[in-house]
Amino acid sequence: MNALNESLPPPADEPFCEGARQLPVRGLRQGQVFEAPDWVAEEVPVALEFNGISHAVMLATPLDLEDFALGFSLSEGILDAAHELYGVEEVVSPEGITLQLEVASSAFMKLKERRRSMTGRTGCGLCGTENLAQVRQDLAPLDSRSVWSAAAVSRAMAQFREHQSLQQFTGAVHAAAWCTADGDVRWLREDVGRHNALDKLIGALAHNDVDASQGFIAVTSRASFEMVQKAAKAGVSLLAAVSAPTALAIETARCAGVTLCGFARQQDLVVYSHADRISLGN
Amino acid sequence: MNALNESLPPPADEPFCEGARQLPVRGLRQGQVFEAPDWVAEEVPVALEFNGISHAVMLATPLDLEDFALGFSLSEGILDAAHELYGVEEVVSPEGITLQLEVASSAFMKLKERRRSMTGRTGCGLCGTENLAQVRQDLAPLDSRSVWSAAAVSRAMAQFREHQSLQQFTGAVHAAAWCTADGDVRWLREDVGRHNALDKLIGALAHNDVDASQGFIAVTSRASFEMVQKAAKAGVSLLAAVSAPTALAIETARCAGVTLCGFARQQDLVVYSHADRISLGN
Repeated sequence: MNALNESLPPPADEPFCEGARQLPVRGLRQGQVFEAPDWVAEEVPVALEFNGISHAVMLATPLDLEDFALGFSLSEGILDAAHELYGVEEVVSPEGITLQLEVASSAFMKLKERRRSMTGRTGCGLCGTENLAQVRQDLAPLDSRSVWSAAAVSRAMAQFREHQSLQQFTGAVHAAAWCTADGDVRWLREDVGRHNALDKLIGALAHNDVDASQGFIAVTSRASFEMVQKAAKAGVSLLAAVSAPTALAIETARCAGVTLCGFARQQDLVVYSHADRISLGN
Repeated sequence: MNALNESLPPPADEPFCEGARQLPVRGLRQGQVFEAPDWVAEEVPVALEFNGISHAVMLATPLDLEDFALGFSLSEGILDAAHELYGVEEVVSPEGITLQLEVASSAFMKLKERRRSMTGRTGCGLCGTENLAQVRQDLAPLDSRSVWSAAAVSRAMAQFREHQSLQQFTGAVHAAAWCTADGDVRWLREDVGRHNALDKLIGALAHNDVDASQGFIAVTSRASFEMVQKAAKAGVSLLAAVSAPTALAIETARCAGVTLCGFARQQDLVVYSHADRISLGN
């Protein structure tokens, strides 16, 4: 069986996981050679086009791509609100998937203006950023008076795993979840890229008219500068990461009014910014 | 003490870790509130300029930036060989670090030509890629007759940790290591970004005239499509990752003649491509 041949759908009685495929592998487990089928996560080049103009290509998990299109556009400041996105067409080709976004002409004019001011090719890692002065987005600091509870964060972390269906099959993907102030996971998105997972989540919240500021975001990864910036832009004043933050992420969280927690595992966590806004007791 | 104030050097008797800073945090550990200093990894916007022209900005750990400049240029196909890089100046500003590369005029002409053919802003995640047709680099498959041993991979994995000095302080960074066929870790580079760590390693190998094909590369992260492409371009026919590969990484490894191992932990590993080139016994 050539498991890479996607034209063969799996028989109905076989397990199936969207965003993953099964293929035969061999290896060593506890000193013993084994051969077995294994689930691996899909990773597909996804191109974004705005009103017919190519904008960017990212490698992503081909799930929840409408959420991705909207979330990316909001995080990048291409759109100011969900209603500026009129529609998304997914065009699949052998090379990957093109997301054709139709956006409000005011947003498109702004994007064209931004593109015109760029002198050439721009970078990876930081979308739309060609030189250092463009790195930080100007964000008004969140004036959040919410006090979050560490218990809610650990409650969310405990629920996380059961919602990560792709991760359970593949062990290869990150997740970002929006949780209520009590720590109930309400929205979760997965992707091979941690920034993509967060953009998908932000898109899902916007699609579904969720007031993101009423809850917090938990991520399975480390917390980088850009992830804090995306959360702040979405109006979320608590970001909890399973792993470590970077120094720039902490600095950005301080400036943007985001409470940043790292190493949030079981009952433990470390608070890196605005520690007065999180209650560590009960 | 404001630990974010970098103008104060640490007293000589305090521990110091390049690429990280210490700052006071509070949190919960095993149900108890604690306050303590914590080490966090630096993450800095790094801009690359080729012969005076801005090219890209990435967030990176500000260590081994000359290796990064060379490795990125080779991985991206901007340079074909290390001798085409005449020099790198690091210019530090409040916004980040600019790496000013001076490259051979033939390489620069090629880069200008490539930029001219781009119609606008390009994407994140995939450097220099604006549409789907540009995603895959044309790589001649490696015609490696080497047979690697699983024992060497597990030997390298066992040595890994002691070389990851920044990770030991911060728990926040990835590493990529080049190892001899016997599994001795000879070169290792760390970065907050896994692709950057690999580019730094590839740059270090090129800087030091190492015949990369004589050893293998081990990474602490998952293995994505781009990481396989970078390894193949560097002539390395075995890539071993601590975590999972993606489906596209596996497909790319099959085409490029790279043996791809995932979940390489202690004695265990899973082989995803060219399994005939790795000996699982002894």
